[in-house]
Amino acid sequence: MRPSGRDLSEMRPVSIETGVTKHAEGSCLIKMGDTHVICTASLEPRVPPFIKGSGLGWVTAEYGMLPRSTGSRMRREATTGKQGGRTVEIQRLIGRSLRAGVDRVALGERQISVDCDVIQADGGTRCAAITGGWVALRLAVNKLMKAGDVITDPLISPVAAVSCGIYAGQPVLDLDYPEDSEAGVDGNFILRGDGQLIEVQMSAEGATFSRDQMGTLLDLAESGVAQLVEAQKAATA
Amino acid sequence: MRPSGRDLSEMRPVSIETGVTKHAEGSCLIKMGDTHVICTASLEPRVPPFIKGSGLGWVTAEYGMLPRSTGSRMRREATTGKQGGRTVEIQRLIGRSLRAGVDRVALGERQISVDCDVIQADGGTRCAAITGGWVALRLAVNKLMKAGDVITDPLISPVAAVSCGIYAGQPVLDLDYPEDSEAGVDGNFILRGDGQLIEVQMSAEGATFSRDQMGTLLDLAESGVAQLVEAQKAATA
Amino acid sequence: MRPSGRDLSEMRPVSIETGVTKHAEGSCLIKMGDTHVICTASLEPRVPPFIKGSGLGWVTAEYGMLPRSTGSRMRREATTGKQGGRTVEIQRLIGRSLRAGVDRVALGERQISVDCDVIQADGGTRCAAITGGWVALRLAVNKLMKAGDVITDPLISPVAAVSCGIYAGQPVLDLDYPEDSEAGVDGNFILRGDGQLIEVQMSAEGATFSRDQMGTLLDLAESGVAQLVEAQKAATA
Amino acid sequence: MRPSGRDLSEMRPVSIETGVTKHAEGSCLIKMGDTHVICTASLEPRVPPFIKGSGLGWVTAEYGMLPRSTGSRMRREATTGKQGGRTVEIQRLIGRSLRAGVDRVALGERQISVDCDVIQADGGTRCAAITGGWVALRLAVNKLMKAGDVITDPLISPVAAVSCGIYAGQPVLDLDYPEDSEAGVDGNFILRGDGQLIEVQMSAEGATFSRDQMGTLLDLAESGVAQLVEAQKAATA
Amino acid sequence: MRPSGRDLSEMRPVSIETGVTKHAEGSCLIKMGDTHVICTASLEPRVPPFIKGSGLGWVTAEYGMLPRSTGSRMRREATTGKQGGRTVEIQRLIGRSLRAGVDRVALGERQISVDCDVIQADGGTRCAAITGGWVALRLAVNKLMKAGDVITDPLISPVAAVSCGIYAGQPVLDLDYPEDSEAGVDGNFILRGDGQLIEVQMSAEGATFSRDQMGTLLDLAESGVAQLVEAQKAATA
Amino acid sequence: MRPSGRDLSEMRPVSIETGVTKHAEGSCLIKMGDTHVICTASLEPRVPPFIKGSGLGWVTAEYGMLPRSTGSRMRREATTGKQGGRTVEIQRLIGRSLRAGVDRVALGERQISVDCDVIQADGGTRCAAITGGWVALRLAVNKLMKAGDVITDPLISPVAAVSCGIYAGQPVLDLDYPEDSEAGVDGNFILRGDGQLIEVQMSAEGATFSRDQMGTLLDLAESGVAQLVEAQKAATA
Repeated sequence: MRPSGRDLSEMRPVSIETGVTKHAEGSCLIKMGDTHVICTASLEPRVPPFIKGSGLGWVTAEYGMLPRSTGSRMRREATTGKQGGRTVEIQRLIGRSLRAGVDRVALGERQISVDCDVIQADGGTRCAAITGGWVALRLAVNKLMKAGDVITDPLISPVAAVSCGIYAGQPVLDLDYPEDSEAGVDGNFILRGDGQLIEVQMSAEGATFSRDQMGTLLDLAESGVAQLVEAQKAATA
Repeated sequence: MRPSGRDLSEMRPVSIETGVTKHAEGSCLIKMGDTHVICTASLEPRVPPFIKGSGLGWVTAEYGMLPRSTGSRMRREATTGKQGGRTVEIQRLIGRSLRAGVDRVALGERQISVDCDVIQADGGTRCAAITGGWVALRLAVNKLMKAGDVITDPLISPVAAVSCGIYAGQPVLDLDYPEDSEAGVDGNFILRGDGQLIEVQMSAEGATFSRDQMGTLLDLAESGVAQLVEAQKAATA
Repeated sequence: MRPSGRDLSEMRPVSIETGVTKHAEGSCLIKMGDTHVICTASLEPRVPPFIKGSGLGWVTAEYGMLPRSTGSRMRREATTGKQGGRTVEIQRLIGRSLRAGVDRVALGERQISVDCDVIQADGGTRCAAITGGWVALRLAVNKLMKAGDVITDPLISPVAAVSCGIYAGQPVLDLDYPEDSEAGVDGNFILRGDGQLIEVQMSAEGATFSRDQMGTLLDLAESGVAQLVEAQKAATA
Repeated sequence: MRPSGRDLSEMRPVSIETGVTKHAEGSCLIKMGDTHVICTASLEPRVPPFIKGSGLGWVTAEYGMLPRSTGSRMRREATTGKQGGRTVEIQRLIGRSLRAGVDRVALGERQISVDCDVIQADGGTRCAAITGGWVALRLAVNKLMKAGDVITDPLISPVAAVSCGIYAGQPVLDLDYPEDSEAGVDGNFILRGDGQLIEVQMSAEGATFSRDQMGTLLDLAESGVAQLVEAQKAATA
Repeated sequence: MRPSGRDLSEMRPVSIETGVTKHAEGSCLIKMGDTHVICTASLEPRVPPFIKGSGLGWVTAEYGMLPRSTGSRMRREATTGKQGGRTVEIQRLIGRSLRAGVDRVALGERQISVDCDVIQADGGTRCAAITGGWVALRLAVNKLMKAGDVITDPLISPVAAVSCGIYAGQPVLDLDYPEDSEAGVDGNFILRGDGQLIEVQMSAEGATFSRDQMGTLLDLAESGVAQLVEAQKAATA
Repeated sequence: MRPSGRDLSEMRPVSIETGVTKHAEGSCLIKMGDTHVICTASLEPRVPPFIKGSGLGWVTAEYGMLPRSTGSRMRREATTGKQGGRTVEIQRLIGRSLRAGVDRVALGERQISVDCDVIQADGGTRCAAITGGWVALRLAVNKLMKAGDVITDPLISPVAAVSCGIYAGQPVLDLDYPEDSEAGVDGNFILRGDGQLIEVQMSAEGATFSRDQMGTLLDLAESGVAQLVEAQKAATA
């Protein structure tokens, strides 16, 4: 029934290659099927004004898409003079989600900036960005710990994200672009490795959904995130 | 336990005054406690390019806050040169939510723009904007139907929104600002009058939540939205 | 002869309601006929760089219109990326006019920001903004004096403004929108309560005017401002 | 008493050199004392949307200052990303004033853009811009008439402008920068060659003024503009 | 003598991998040492206004750097509101250079947009972008020719670029970042495969250069470009 | 053969008038044929952050064109919200070129800003700007030395620029606009008075060039710059 022939609860193949750029403190290329995202974590010399002197750390994120990561070329946001609404929403989500897995006291007063740049898009780019972004963050934090700059591990639990939706009337896991563009309801679930929910974002796009369906979608999300956390652990072992 | 002395499942008083500006096709001033929002619905002569010739209608929304609607004065977005990320997120949510209650074929090829301007803020402004925005939309559509420009009612069901969150470890309904600024988890539930879910947005802010808590929050939201739909019906009767 | 049936020298009804928002140090809703403006005065923690260390105070103003305050919806300035030329002109005028009634030494090194937001427009919005803005300023200064932060009253005299113009060949007072859009000459007179002139702005729009007409317009303005000052005093008594 | 030693009612020397750039349809360099402004009038192939098909012409203006036209270097507006409030006000004033001397029916459906660029500033740049701008406009219209593109002269009467103010308690004519920066009250009077008033803009800057003083200022302005109109006529004879 | 141990006239290893994104009509990942650039060529449905109806084609280019492609994180240009001067210069150079190898009549009235995004930077990114950009363009044109949309090959000759400079007093070929940041003179030479010069850009940065040195640099550039053209041919064979 | 009737190696008449604005520390009006540029050098009270505390000086430049300096009116960059790519390229070139003739230690920690504003354009504006900009810089530095603020002359050698190109198949010197708009290859050569090269920028615009032609162009440039340096010396003697 799904365009890709996958089962309703079947994820696309996931791969995470680390160390893809020599400059960043942490980096990876995450592939969820044909969705490819480069994630880097940069230790920044400056902290935002609102944490100065607080002793607390900060993790922030930015998101971008290469102009031809998509089926037809998009305008480059740098030439339009601003980031679009969708970009702003996504990067705020990535930052908020990653922070939910961080002990900001243990991190200490420093900022880590996570950049997620989509090289090729086929649905679920924000979920790939969060999942890969956590890997880059993990690697950067490892470096800080190895150097003795951070003593207690500030990463409480892995953070991963997966999309779910209702496609052709059926709850499905990990939508690709052909599904995403047709789904009447879709959304993103961000969970920690310990099963706690961090963020739920379900949106109707021309349809609505019932509480029962909400339950099924949560089941799918839990199963998907569990697989992603395995891949994160393998990549950062 | 709540700063306002309300019960965990108790809403703030709601009032909706219609016809507050003589120019708009539909308008209201909605008050949810000390959160006051002016909502107007404007019939626009032009439709966005992507629906031209489709015969389908469009509903869009914009959101703003008066600079001193808040405890300390905010910078006016018109002077900063752009709408902030929070504003963009909120107005996209309002538009998407209202469209989920609209039969775009019945509306016909026309655009209605809903403006939600916060006069005084005390938490839950986006929920008040959606709930009041629907009232303004209802009144503007009534005008179109009375004039014979629209035959079948394009409004399928009322759309209303309420915030819920976990405050001091307890799920609570309709957070005011003192609660909102302390809650470790909070979010917004947008439902139709027939009980169908349109949008769920739960975010951790320094805490996480379990599936059980998610269930309780959904219960609270359903009860809150039911009360708001009553107020919407009374205001537009 | 006037569309509203008013005499040539007759003002629209004026009302000033104070305390319309709980956050601002001073606030009012001023109505000059169908022109409704919310004015707030905010005590700002910071002063502009050019007065730092001078011991002098500063009063500044910003002006905005809700998108549907007018007959047809205007674009929201926050979405266009900048304030239009008309807005910039008006808010500079409001700030300059209010400062002309302030003893900046007595105010002390602090800034008060006056925001004037038009809820409904029917001509003369900048005059209503100045007149209502002064009321908000008065209330905020009263608060400072009550708290003992300011000892000598820094408000020398009330400041109020009224529009005049030549409509259908006749000098008229307090133009509403139907008159304003037809008048060949119109302008604004800002005066202090003691009768001194602060600002005169007369513009030809397709017509010109003689020195004699200028005299008549000044007579009208003096009579109009006197009535506004009475309303200001009543509201702040 | 005046820093320059001039009498209270004495203008600075005025010179107007025409034809200063080979490309523009009309151009001049106007000098009012040490204030030097290059004015060009350009016949534009396009008209603004709001006059399309109306048969009416349009005259618009833009104003700029070279960064080092002033005592200390100003930031170039092209690098700040927008024209400042003062610039916007001035160029709107120039355009409005010039249009008050134009018969838009006689001009026919075409646009003339007047650019006024300040090479050296010493007070009164906007008045020099209006006075020189009219000369450039006159020359461009002459060209149109010579070519037979315009039959009836669309320039009803010359338009010229002069500043007046109250300096050291005395009404003075044509303020230079040292006076302008000290004057408690100053403003601009734009008149037609036939003595009709087009625009009056008097502003208090830390002082106020009486009706009597307003009369004296009008007397000075009438005398000043009469001299400028002579210079305009000589330059375009 | 060179930090990398290379000979004065020795290039870094070059590799060009094609087909790196499934959406673009042509794409490659070019590596010149540690400088890695993704180049895509997109066939655009629209042409710029200035070629409409001319029958001539257009090739344009855009350039970007991932924020952490460099040693320390750069601000993302999309968040600063505009492309910096360096970016604008580079992308204009890429477009101009590629067009110098295109027969615009043979291409026909269509636009190809070449995007060059730097994944990892180590000096010479603009040269890598031109060289890789031509490969992406070649592949996209091949597709057009295979589909019969273009009959005569519009690509006259390959276009490739290499940097040269004077490092520690010696003319060197293909500078990497440690050399680039120290070189007193450096620049870029863009040539066609047939040896014709397209663009020469030599700049002093704290030093100057003689005509003799200019000759040696040209020799180096010719040898470097010959090697790059071989790599281009191998990649697109 | 040249539209102007000049020989292939003949420059246009050059004149340099100094002291054209009373405010700037150095200024001139340079005319290369019908290309007229006002250049000012301003001593700035502040230095850019990257030289603070270094003891080194900085020279920067900005470039602009009056809207009607060209055959048809251009949009004013201040109204478009940003400087175009061409402007940015040119002003970076001017600054870089002038700095190549400056001993930044001798200048001491101060910034000089050179503004080059084109009053009338007929090709070669950037070369006129560099040549005239150096004159303004020379005069400003003279002032610093006279005042004893700078002891050792920081200007190593004059800096001047000339354009060359291939017009109708022939290498020509100092292109005017009719040639510039037809030339298949053109560029700019910036040299010091001692004959050292500072910058070479040759670009193909629809044609290419050989190494032999490159040699001839360099010959022409050396002869042209020698004449300009004479004019610079005469003007600043």
